[in-house]
Amino acid sequence: MKKSALQKARAAYQPKLPIVLTGAVKAVEGRPTESVADQEAIHALFPNTYGLPELRFEKNATPAQGKPVNVGVILSGGQAPGGHNVISGLFDGIKKIHRDSRLFGFLMGPGGLVDHKYIELTAPIIDEYRNTGGFDIIGSGRTKLEKKEQFDKGLEILRELGINALVIIGGDDSNTNAAVLAEYYKAINAGVQVIGCPKTIDGDLKNDLIETSFGFDTATKVYSEVIGNIQRDCNSAKKYWHFIKLMGRSASHIALECALQTQPNICLISEEIEAKNMSLKDIVKYIADIVTARAADGNNFGTVLVPEGLIEFIPEFKKLIAELNELLGSHKDEVAAMNHEQLTQFILDNLNAENLAALKSLPESVARQLMLDRDPHGNVQVSLIETEKLLSQMVAAELAQSEAFKAAKGKFSSLHHFFGYEGRCADPSNFDADYCYSLGFNAAALINAGVTGYMSSIRNLVKPAVQWIAGGIPITMMMNIERRNAEDKPVIQKALVRLDGAPFQKFASKRDEWARTTSYIYPGPIQYFGPAEVCDQPSMTLKYEHQNK
Amino acid sequence: MKKSALQKARAAYQPKLPIVLTGAVKAVEGRPTESVADQEAIHALFPNTYGLPELRFEKNATPAQGKPVNVGVILSGGQAPGGHNVISGLFDGIKKIHRDSRLFGFLMGPGGLVDHKYIELTAPIIDEYRNTGGFDIIGSGRTKLEKKEQFDKGLEILRELGINALVIIGGDDSNTNAAVLAEYYKAINAGVQVIGCPKTIDGDLKNDLIETSFGFDTATKVYSEVIGNIQRDCNSAKKYWHFIKLMGRSASHIALECALQTQPNICLISEEIEAKNMSLKDIVKYIADIVTARAADGNNFGTVLVPEGLIEFIPEFKKLIAELNELLGSHKDEVAAMNHEQLTQFILDNLNAENLAALKSLPESVARQLMLDRDPHGNVQVSLIETEKLLSQMVAAELAQSEAFKAAKGKFSSLHHFFGYEGRCADPSNFDADYCYSLGFNAAALINAGVTGYMSSIRNLVKPAVQWIAGGIPITMMMNIERRNAEDKPVIQKALVRLDGAPFQKFASKRDEWARTTSYIYPGPIQYFGPAEVCDQPSMTLKYEHQNK
Repeated sequence: MKKSALQKARAAYQPKLPIVLTGAVKAVEGRPTESVADQEAIHALFPNTYGLPELRFEKNATPAQGKPVNVGVILSGGQAPGGHNVISGLFDGIKKIHRDSRLFGFLMGPGGLVDHKYIELTAPIIDEYRNTGGFDIIGSGRTKLEKKEQFDKGLEILRELGINALVIIGGDDSNTNAAVLAEYYKAINAGVQVIGCPKTIDGDLKNDLIETSFGFDTATKVYSEVIGNIQRDCNSAKKYWHFIKLMGRSASHIALECALQTQPNICLISEEIEAKNMSLKDIVKYIADIVTARAADGNNFGTVLVPEGLIEFIPEFKKLIAELNELLGSHKDEVAAMNHEQLTQFILDNLNAENLAALKSLPESVARQLMLDRDPHGNVQVSLIETEKLLSQMVAAELAQSEAFKAAKGKFSSLHHFFGYEGRCADPSNFDADYCYSLGFNAAALINAGVTGYMSSIRNLVKPAVQWIAGGIPITMMMNIERRNAEDKPVIQKALVRLDGAPFQKFASKRDEWARTTSYIYPGPIQYFGPAEVCDQPSMTLKYEHQNK
Repeated sequence: MKKSALQKARAAYQPKLPIVLTGAVKAVEGRPTESVADQEAIHALFPNTYGLPELRFEKNATPAQGKPVNVGVILSGGQAPGGHNVISGLFDGIKKIHRDSRLFGFLMGPGGLVDHKYIELTAPIIDEYRNTGGFDIIGSGRTKLEKKEQFDKGLEILRELGINALVIIGGDDSNTNAAVLAEYYKAINAGVQVIGCPKTIDGDLKNDLIETSFGFDTATKVYSEVIGNIQRDCNSAKKYWHFIKLMGRSASHIALECALQTQPNICLISEEIEAKNMSLKDIVKYIADIVTARAADGNNFGTVLVPEGLIEFIPEFKKLIAELNELLGSHKDEVAAMNHEQLTQFILDNLNAENLAALKSLPESVARQLMLDRDPHGNVQVSLIETEKLLSQMVAAELAQSEAFKAAKGKFSSLHHFFGYEGRCADPSNFDADYCYSLGFNAAALINAGVTGYMSSIRNLVKPAVQWIAGGIPITMMMNIERRNAEDKPVIQKALVRLDGAPFQKFASKRDEWARTTSYIYPGPIQYFGPAEVCDQPSMTLKYEHQNK
């Protein structure tokens, strides 16, 4: 690998750890836990790993000599900045327990465990990847670990390699699977612990004890850099409305964080749109009114942030998508045999009248995407729907009919952007570099403590890293029962944007001002070597959520 | 303006100057100049400003006391990182000549001169914008200064404000207009000097004495940052081909520079495609063959850089576009009165058979864009043509027919990106911050030297800034006669990518290796505070072009 100048300079960075993890630790048990909902059902599904206590690491004055551990690690799902630091932290952590400990990386995601594809991660390999973005050290994949046969097949290679513990780095789905795997290995006394690490740029895997998932900080900073650049262009040329869609499968945390960092004229928050029961027409009118007000001030330019998952939160489309998912999920085999024309007809014949009307209100290309393009899990592929263009076209049509816009002598030209892949593999910010390294190092401590079905938890993140709190929380604690592909399943509850939360409240208190005035902020690129106020700030979301704690 | 933490920290940066400009200077005349072509015709059009000598500033041991000057400044055309530093350099330069000198900024481009819209740029305003991206200090615009009435109208306000010199910061078109304006004001003895500054992210305004236009360095670094991030994602997920279109109206300098920085699997260079007389089908085959070869290695992923101006360089489409431009340019009034249907019919009725066939070979949406969407200068709007999608669709179709791809068990999924607005207003890199400040400071020295029709020239740019050479070159020297909108016009010759130049040669010697292997480089974001090898490197294009000088 030929390294860039920045990579070479950055390799020397020593990530910061919570002070407790720099010495010997003991795990202190907190109160037993309950799942966030559906306690009985979750308990029944996880008889061996339900109700475990929270854990917190404290200094251990009389540590026992550690024994060598063999650990496996898996990167699961979409990339997020910092994955390599989780692995290097884990490596350093198990080496600290005993120098003969070994780390094995399963290749291209959970599939590597099932297919017995792996490499041993030795010091020279690890050193190549410290503080770098990407998941390319072992690759990632989206194979779901759900079935007993997969678990048994995986156990073969774990036994062959003498692996005592498996660390799964993933989002809500992957950690759900980690919990199921932990329960299974515990139930059969396999002697393999399973530990999860909270990864996702989407920021929707969080709760009181998991303050943020890793990657969110870096990805939103990269998006905010380019949004800021676009805003500066917008404010220089003063002739375009830029519609900027931002990745984030479901929740609007990314859009909200970017809005707080860059102060655009408009930012849509899916969770609010759902709560206010806004129709697509309402959203278009909301945007068109701001465009008109700005035109009246002579400002025929602006920026609109659009969360990727928007369409699923507009109630009329949410209902439509729910019926589509249910319809297709419950006719899997017939659907698989249909061509596009047959599938279209099947859908049109079976949708209820209200949902059919919603479908028909969309431009044909969007309707077609909703009906025909689905991901391997059977979900609508919202990322393929060009919501940003859909909105600007509908706004243009609305403005063409508007007397007020005509009276304002308004002009409306739009440009479109979608940012996602640009940020998922960026070199981690100092925050993510430190947080990820700590998560991995802490996972080693959880392994040493002998627990399973836990997620690595590093808290108190708005404080300097030395003051961070390290521990573990039972994954089952985050679970509830949800309907997925026409089945009830135990899953980790997604953390959506809370409309009563401080980040949204801050945004809501400012957005009317940002809409009318031009109050853009230009954050610029992530810096690694400058003053702390430039290089070492956590996300605004994290700051606002935890500022009073 | 609420400033980001980086902006605040960056405000303190003191741009570096060539050592000669830090003291008093005298202008030393070099040899008289000739235009690059069409010498007689250019001489006839510029009787007062043709053939002037090159100028080079040297230390002046016996400087005269300078007199206050009033200077006007205009930002013209598309944004480029560093424009604010040209203005702050100019401000500091004229203040150094005399503390009572004043600077006026005309608003929203050349139109501000004609419409008498301006502000005085005072020290507090200048200080707000030092080392920042964007042109928002006074805005920019694309009004062309071409007509006598505009020049006369402009002269009114210049006289009213007592302005002795006008600095036009722009690309090739804007500097062409600067030369015409300089000639006119000289011819009528208006007493107003006109000085140009070489701006464009496209990198196509350069020659022996203008080594690079400003903004190219920063913009390509921003694009390379996000391309690198995408490549790391690509190499982690190993399942997509990313087609990445890069801004650059005509020349492929941006794509070439980004390729040198990031080492993608494929980068198309328009100039080579034209030189080799490649058809669209040839290009598609070239890409499909590499996709197939990688598939045979088990690598169903990769990256393709596509220069924005590609379509105009494919000979079959170049001919088509030339005929379209000529046809529509020579029937301006009739065309203006036509609706879309009539215009389409008019074009279909009048194109020659070969060009009609080329038009019909395109997907309908692309053909429609070629026919109907044109910029205010009457040119095809290549930036609207989604070449990246056109290519990936045609590659997919080619692969679907390919036995070799089938034999390799290849898979082909593509994702698309277009980067342009993301980089034009980025905070300038240290290089652009220094270069721009020097260009502006040097423009003040040219004003003090009493010359007109010159472009500010800072050379020796691969060396440390203290060793840079400062001077001026007559704009007419860069001109030739070209056909534009069905008229012969004197214009600055665009500097296209030279296939015998060192940057392309370097790329060409490596690309087969980069195509087959995965040799991505991940440059990461622009850094301002770190080690010199990270923060202070000029572009690879500049390095390779001048490494042996």
